[in-house]
Amino acid sequence: MTGQRMTPAEQAQLAMMLEVTAFPKPGNVDRCHDYPDTRLEHFLASVIFVQPSLAMASEPGARTGALIRDAVARTNVHSGGNTHFGAFLLIIPLIMGGDIDGAIKVVRQTTVDDAVEFYQAFAMTQVRVLSSDTLDVNDPAALDMIRQQHLTLYDIMEHSAGNDMIAREWINGFQKVRIGADLLKGHGHGRNSIVQTFLDLLSFELDTFIIKKHGKEIAEKTMMNAREVKDGHLDLTMFDRSCIDAGINPGSTADIMIGSLYVALGEGWQWDS
Amino acid sequence: MTGQRMTPAEQAQLAMMLEVTAFPKPGNVDRCHDYPDTRLEHFLASVIFVQPSLAMASEPGARTGALIRDAVARTNVHSGGNTHFGAFLLIIPLIMGGDIDGAIKVVRQTTVDDAVEFYQAFAMTQVRVLSSDTLDVNDPAALDMIRQQHLTLYDIMEHSAGNDMIAREWINGFQKVRIGADLLKGHGHGRNSIVQTFLDLLSFELDTFIIKKHGKEIAEKTMMNAREVKDGHLDLTMFDRSCIDAGINPGSTADIMIGSLYVALGEGWQWDS
Repeated sequence: MTGQRMTPAEQAQLAMMLEVTAFPKPGNVDRCHDYPDTRLEHFLASVIFVQPSLAMASEPGARTGALIRDAVARTNVHSGGNTHFGAFLLIIPLIMGGDIDGAIKVVRQTTVDDAVEFYQAFAMTQVRVLSSDTLDVNDPAALDMIRQQHLTLYDIMEHSAGNDMIAREWINGFQKVRIGADLLKGHGHGRNSIVQTFLDLLSFELDTFIIKKHGKEIAEKTMMNAREVKDGHLDLTMFDRSCIDAGINPGSTADIMIGSLYVALGEGWQWDS
Repeated sequence: MTGQRMTPAEQAQLAMMLEVTAFPKPGNVDRCHDYPDTRLEHFLASVIFVQPSLAMASEPGARTGALIRDAVARTNVHSGGNTHFGAFLLIIPLIMGGDIDGAIKVVRQTTVDDAVEFYQAFAMTQVRVLSSDTLDVNDPAALDMIRQQHLTLYDIMEHSAGNDMIAREWINGFQKVRIGADLLKGHGHGRNSIVQTFLDLLSFELDTFIIKKHGKEIAEKTMMNAREVKDGHLDLTMFDRSCIDAGINPGSTADIMIGSLYVALGEGWQWDS
């Protein structure tokens, strides 16, 4: 089945489903691993519940911030907490724009209202932020500051790009999403490419979700371990086990992967070969 | 999260997702087992792609046969083949009717057109039928016979009820779906109840999908093994392994389970406790 036969929303849901079921994936929830509070079913329930937000993203007049807030609200209904915040930041502009070039335009056109709605979405979740951040989402003054300084959602992402690899995608033209899509296609059709691409992405760059949760040293160690797996010096299953045991989940890399899967599916990469 | 906050279509998709991810489930595709040609991702892709058919089932003027055909067409697009034919026969009337009492009325009101559309759906799939069946779906004369004899879809199900436990549900008032929903609630909230209920259902009655594929003797042996697991005389993982190795998948019991999950979710049973 190729991308042409799917709606953009279905293509995004398929990307989310394929990411979470790919196995073995170091540290993240996957087909064979849960975390005590966030399990495979929570991720898959979010794939189901987010459908209306993703369908609206293809409609004329769709607005980035409002849709991100809508998607977070629809998926924040189960006990598994936030599952896809970072992924929504990527796939909603990708659906709205049609492709990466279109998504680049979409994010540059975001407004102050989009920024406010993004912060309202943020406030529903437990997404990790660095406490040193002057635009701390838990700070009620942040919304006033956004309005007073006329900050758009793009401005917010520019501000966060140093510490957050998803924000960085908005600024650098979805660079890592593009690389991931090319890697997926390079590794060939089918689910094994997802695992290989995940390892590639993890070995290139520090996962900022790990930095926020465990600090830079652990993120660096995780990146080095991913390289060792690729070089054949570390067993993937062992690496996965050690990540799971220590609660080290490369969540931002998983979000990038969802964006990459969305793009690759649209370019003819086949998931079920 | 309770059933009230979901749309009927979401509730049905959730039931399909929870059934296929429940583990360990003897013989069927589950979180940890694939068959070579039909994998977990195929089932989950069908959960995504069937959404419009399920949403239409809540609309006024919905028609059973047309929706079954629509659901089969939408999910017949990947290489995994037919994944949910039997389940659609249960959940579409359940959504249309609102509950089991409503579904009983829906199936009794089906028409000759519904029967024709059902056969058109059938023709898209590789669903197993007994070759002794006079209404063999592979026989072009069957459609003429349906029209000449004014057979409704309910009549077709009545004709098939002896050999097919899904058809039997239409005739006996969704009896096994009801029992499964009560068992789920009795075993308590959460995913472990799904596995227990699956074993209960498998130990009560021969799975007609196994009969059609392997014969009655194997179906009886599977039922007896399920009883032994319940009695603590056989290890569930061993039973699962032996079924998978022999290709014995209780597919009709899985379809009943999806109907039971749909009903139980609507009655307050919680999946994520």
